[in-house]
Amino acid sequence: MQKTAVTQQPINELIAKRWSPRAFDASKPVSHEQIIALLEAARWAPSCFGDEPWRFIVWDKNADAKSWQQAFDCLAPSNQTWVKNAPILMLVCADSLFGHNQKENRWGQYDTGAAAENLCLQASSMGLVAHQMGGFNTDAAREAFKIPAQITPMAMLTVGYEGDANDLPDEIKTRELAPRKRKPLGEHFFTGTWGKPVKA
Amino acid sequence: MQKTAVTQQPINELIAKRWSPRAFDASKPVSHEQIIALLEAARWAPSCFGDEPWRFIVWDKNADAKSWQQAFDCLAPSNQTWVKNAPILMLVCADSLFGHNQKENRWGQYDTGAAAENLCLQASSMGLVAHQMGGFNTDAAREAFKIPAQITPMAMLTVGYEGDANDLPDEIKTRELAPRKRKPLGEHFFTGTWGKPVKA
Repeated sequence: MQKTAVTQQPINELIAKRWSPRAFDASKPVSHEQIIALLEAARWAPSCFGDEPWRFIVWDKNADAKSWQQAFDCLAPSNQTWVKNAPILMLVCADSLFGHNQKENRWGQYDTGAAAENLCLQASSMGLVAHQMGGFNTDAAREAFKIPAQITPMAMLTVGYEGDANDLPDEIKTRELAPRKRKPLGEHFFTGTWGKPVKA
Repeated sequence: MQKTAVTQQPINELIAKRWSPRAFDASKPVSHEQIIALLEAARWAPSCFGDEPWRFIVWDKNADAKSWQQAFDCLAPSNQTWVKNAPILMLVCADSLFGHNQKENRWGQYDTGAAAENLCLQASSMGLVAHQMGGFNTDAAREAFKIPAQITPMAMLTVGYEGDANDLPDEIKTRELAPRKRKPLGEHFFTGTWGKPVKA
């Protein structure tokens, strides 16, 4: 389904077309080569001091169903209803400390968000879709996958081929078919000083 | 200058080619339409609960040199040596609270990093370059631009046309000409559980 962003100036097609579907096609696996391409896109994001504070754990249902299930079990039930059809699950984490001196890295989460966005855009560019979720049990994930204390689990995400929205439960289907929307540009984008809306 | 990422599987060209130069061409302004396109790319990033926690302030040297200078003055001296040639400066901020209930948004910085990455990729796609910096005085920026307490200044960034690396001071020129590098894939990307390297 195309949900191209409505913008006041044309933007790059890859960025305009990325969105976060919930309908996945359970019959189409994602290849190992595709997974590596997704991770490479994340890997080449920029980061403060080149620290690369992101960490990703990948679960491929077709390669290791048991581990995938363990990851799936960490998700909020509301997400599980649609994630069940997604062949790939990932957990995106941020290091809270710099690697070179183990001091606080205040850009750890910010840089990790950039890496995850690269991954989502890369998915789009390969004809896949990706969807990030905040709704998961971080303590359960930390316990199940032995995530160190200095690491913050930020998001879980799904990757796969887009499925048929008609297969979704009614409430989720309604959200799936709704138009994408954003606040007016001038609400969050300012010129010269705080709160002065940029004019398109 | 091309510094295409070296990857184990091909990735999208836009993501592969984005990098963060320090040499800017002071003679080439960025148009208002280009600025809007950059902000639109950021605006269409994904965010938790669709909160769009990012805030951007833009300074255009050619439209308002005085405000641009105020922003420039917030930068660390080591950045000022090369930023002086960049026509556009921005400050990227993250809301620490959700807009709909004013409760803590633990994804505020993560989502803001995604928006900034979209902007940097959009710059690349228009033949511009962007460079993010953590080295600036957040208190000075907060004071100068009246940034509310719940908002966290994350990064300043430059946008413009790439200049000639030979015009940079020696030490910066050396960094500019060095190859881009990243840690081996398996160091930060795991499969099945924490610490188990993904195999390319």
